[in-house]
Amino acid sequence: MTTDIPKEMQRIVLASRPQGAPVAQNFRLERLPMPEIGAGEFLVRVIWLSLDPYMRGRMDDSKSYAASVPLDGVMEAGAVGQVIASNNAAFHPGDFVTGAFGWQTHAVSDGDMVRVLDPAAAPISTALGVLGMPGLTAYVGLNDHGRPKAGETLVVGAATGAVGSVVGQLAKAYGLRVVGVAGGAEKCAYAQEELGFDACLDHRAATDARALRANLAAACPDGVDIYFENVAGKTLEAVIPLMNVHGRIPLCGMISWYNGGAPGSGVTDGANLLPMVWRSILVNRLSVRGFIIFDHYDRFPAFVKEVSGLIRDGRVKYRESIAEGLENAPEAFIRMLEGGNFGKQLVRISPDPTR
Amino acid sequence: MTTDIPKEMQRIVLASRPQGAPVAQNFRLERLPMPEIGAGEFLVRVIWLSLDPYMRGRMDDSKSYAASVPLDGVMEAGAVGQVIASNNAAFHPGDFVTGAFGWQTHAVSDGDMVRVLDPAAAPISTALGVLGMPGLTAYVGLNDHGRPKAGETLVVGAATGAVGSVVGQLAKAYGLRVVGVAGGAEKCAYAQEELGFDACLDHRAATDARALRANLAAACPDGVDIYFENVAGKTLEAVIPLMNVHGRIPLCGMISWYNGGAPGSGVTDGANLLPMVWRSILVNRLSVRGFIIFDHYDRFPAFVKEVSGLIRDGRVKYRESIAEGLENAPEAFIRMLEGGNFGKQLVRISPDPTR
Repeated sequence: MTTDIPKEMQRIVLASRPQGAPVAQNFRLERLPMPEIGAGEFLVRVIWLSLDPYMRGRMDDSKSYAASVPLDGVMEAGAVGQVIASNNAAFHPGDFVTGAFGWQTHAVSDGDMVRVLDPAAAPISTALGVLGMPGLTAYVGLNDHGRPKAGETLVVGAATGAVGSVVGQLAKAYGLRVVGVAGGAEKCAYAQEELGFDACLDHRAATDARALRANLAAACPDGVDIYFENVAGKTLEAVIPLMNVHGRIPLCGMISWYNGGAPGSGVTDGANLLPMVWRSILVNRLSVRGFIIFDHYDRFPAFVKEVSGLIRDGRVKYRESIAEGLENAPEAFIRMLEGGNFGKQLVRISPDPTR
Repeated sequence: MTTDIPKEMQRIVLASRPQGAPVAQNFRLERLPMPEIGAGEFLVRVIWLSLDPYMRGRMDDSKSYAASVPLDGVMEAGAVGQVIASNNAAFHPGDFVTGAFGWQTHAVSDGDMVRVLDPAAAPISTALGVLGMPGLTAYVGLNDHGRPKAGETLVVGAATGAVGSVVGQLAKAYGLRVVGVAGGAEKCAYAQEELGFDACLDHRAATDARALRANLAAACPDGVDIYFENVAGKTLEAVIPLMNVHGRIPLCGMISWYNGGAPGSGVTDGANLLPMVWRSILVNRLSVRGFIIFDHYDRFPAFVKEVSGLIRDGRVKYRESIAEGLENAPEAFIRMLEGGNFGKQLVRISPDPTR
């Protein structure tokens, strides 16, 4: 395959660190000459860029599980693209690949942590969502930490998001009662009608955590055995008093709190909240376990096998929210943190020849 | 054995539910005729009464893992006594026994959950402390949930208390670095000099959680792998940012918060505290696990075997704080919740013929 390689590429760098919610001025679009590839390297034209809540943490300079993005550094992201030039025998021009290519139109890679995709097996964009890191997060958190049993009740927030939608559909496949929480009537209808959740509650329609709790209590007549935690805030406060004895809380995210803001943002009980949570952990002998998906790549083969089968059977569905063009990535990211996406948030950086 | 059985017994009942910290008026001493024993029953003269923080929860009427004490009901407690009359072939007059006899001078039992003690094996009062429920709590929490490894660092609050002192000494026996937190210089000196802790910090000498954190950070140069949680409040707030990746938090109590009081009692960061704790659980992939010792009686034989050996070897020491007479039990209980005890809190209800 021969491809005309453009003379120039674009990328988005971190211009300044956000105070609270990120704004457009925290990002800067740069143009630069197309880099040359060295020995063992290859050049990728990025097609799909993944936007995920964890990236908000990388914009801060506080200690986290991964290094912060440095000022003027390229924003990190998983992406899918196509090899357009290669000095690496394992990666051929034309190959579709996924890796941590960042917020840019082109990337040079040595193949480390890059995987070749089979476009006949599944749409290549799914490598960033239902068959990628978000799907693996759902799979590991639910199975390894949630230990689901048929007949139990699971609650998950961001129910139509990339992680929550897979958590809920897997739990349905395992025979659990599944109650989602999402922002807005349209998402809730989708979770119930398309994803097959038993119920989905609109947290925006609940005036505060106590109102949401009353709705959750009605939707979970047997209490809650697993609360899959990816949102925290109001949903956490609502669900904690409903936990059953020996309940499990796999914790992979807390999007409500990523932007900081007012103390205990989005919660009603303020300073009493930790005592309430701690008391429930004690009285109900709960297990709360934080996990980061980068620790669990060994589960990838089992995950892909099971979930791709469920996708083929129509038991796991997915939805994508697509922004167009690298220049629109910051706005899409800011909107996603406010819950403005509906399904897995992607940015189309260049045309996908498989669609 | 023949014993003169008194005509009258005494007991302490819950007169009213506390608002915040219990006061003397929440308790009432009653005198009543000595009960007759029926078929299969026996009568116990109580010698040692155990006072434990969990009893504070039983005084409330909110949902917990065990039923509340009803108003006008006898306060619950584990106790050690001697059988003075019996219609039960398994329990003979003269036997020393331990069971949930309650805050009273005499108890009628059918033998359910009652264990006969061998006074030659260990002082009978240890059945309420180092070789009883508090010791088992330490053993199960540390081993089953804490999963200690030699060379790791453990922090435990209420370091000289019935649970904390065993946690720290067991962890020392397993080769960990052990840092305690206790109230007052005398307790801290005891933890270091008698119990062999590597360090013990006085939370009363630290003006707030941040000051305590600075002291803890200095005492834990390699961070904290296990935080054995039995106190919450200021100690929890201080230790959370020091947790290492894959740290464990066995949670068996939260004495700082039992009496309620101001929102987030005893903490500096108020409404930001749960987000801080939740973030550490996520970023450090912590495991927080609540447990109630009543679920783990199956571990009793292994526990007694190991810990009684360590006591004989002088590697596990214990200390008792003894109040005299049933009528003084409420005051001793109130003082214990404020940290006024020094070692396992007991009440001597009647003479111990083995001392």
